[in-house]
Amino acid sequence: MESTTERTTVPAGEGRAVRVAAGRRVRVVDLEGGQVGDLFAFAAGDPRERLSAAHTRSVTSRLFPEVGEAFVTDRRRPILVLAGDASPGSHDMLIAACDPARYAALGVPEHRSCARNLELALAELGIEVAVTPQPVNVFMRIPVQESGRLRWLPAESRAGDSITFEAAMDCVVVVSACPQDMVGINNDRPTPLAIDVW
Amino acid sequence: MESTTERTTVPAGEGRAVRVAAGRRVRVVDLEGGQVGDLFAFAAGDPRERLSAAHTRSVTSRLFPEVGEAFVTDRRRPILVLAGDASPGSHDMLIAACDPARYAALGVPEHRSCARNLELALAELGIEVAVTPQPVNVFMRIPVQESGRLRWLPAESRAGDSITFEAAMDCVVVVSACPQDMVGINNDRPTPLAIDVW
Repeated sequence: MESTTERTTVPAGEGRAVRVAAGRRVRVVDLEGGQVGDLFAFAAGDPRERLSAAHTRSVTSRLFPEVGEAFVTDRRRPILVLAGDASPGSHDMLIAACDPARYAALGVPEHRSCARNLELALAELGIEVAVTPQPVNVFMRIPVQESGRLRWLPAESRAGDSITFEAAMDCVVVVSACPQDMVGINNDRPTPLAIDVW
Repeated sequence: MESTTERTTVPAGEGRAVRVAAGRRVRVVDLEGGQVGDLFAFAAGDPRERLSAAHTRSVTSRLFPEVGEAFVTDRRRPILVLAGDASPGSHDMLIAACDPARYAALGVPEHRSCARNLELALAELGIEVAVTPQPVNVFMRIPVQESGRLRWLPAESRAGDSITFEAAMDCVVVVSACPQDMVGINNDRPTPLAIDVW
């Protein structure tokens, strides 16, 4: 099965989009370790329908699905199923994609961002979306404290760790190797990811 | 000050929109107790800019702002400041608005919903939006367990309890008195809310 894997490398700080047919699997690999990926998914037939973190929390009654559970769209239709997790298991669906406004506040308005990476990656496929959805932040470590306070901790994924999804519909999956190098979530050094589809 | 309060009653299961100028205060009152309100806010100048739960969590590093903190838009600009909370303090920004897909899954596709209430309330002001944002669910009790599991508990607000915001920009605020009567969040009986602006 692995022999037919198509690998797309996502260079450090950049984003890439892949088309994934229903029933195929898509895996995000942390090539060097300690790197967050912002993942987005859109229905191939109508990219206005997209993976929704809020609807996924509502349907699963969890902050993040467990293996075997589905991420659903804003129309509550399964789009990706969490098929496997070969990582320490810290992932996030609470934090927005970094964007020009975030970096402007940090004093570097021209900095690359996951929001802009999403736009550029979709444009390669001729797709435009009006709104940046809440991403699925793979390998991102944002523990929730009892008080409701969120902590921002460095990703603890190791080189070769991965998270695997099965497409529940024909979809477009975008992964941005988060370019954030001004807070510690990527261990201060953005590195590449890979997207495997098989 | 209270003498100039304009009250808009939100009938049980319905939604209403109000315009709120920068610096004015808007208060959501639970008239009979135990009722969830789905609150949305949009920039008056361009309703494509709207209160974003994800960006608010990111900026505050909290699941829900504390009194004195701001809810921000998807452009990370403050839109409402949490000015006061005269309720037991349970509010939610994790759960999506109920919508026709939710009720279709419960077997009643024609049921009223907060998503549809939002559309109808905005249409009264001649506003249309492409996407239903993640709402601020006032009085909604969704505790997060250490495992990441979310519990759905009945609202514990009492008659007359309220939550107050100060507008940080000219905005449109929509409140839906959640029509959910098939799970217990509204104590099985949807009741009215009020929106006070002063």
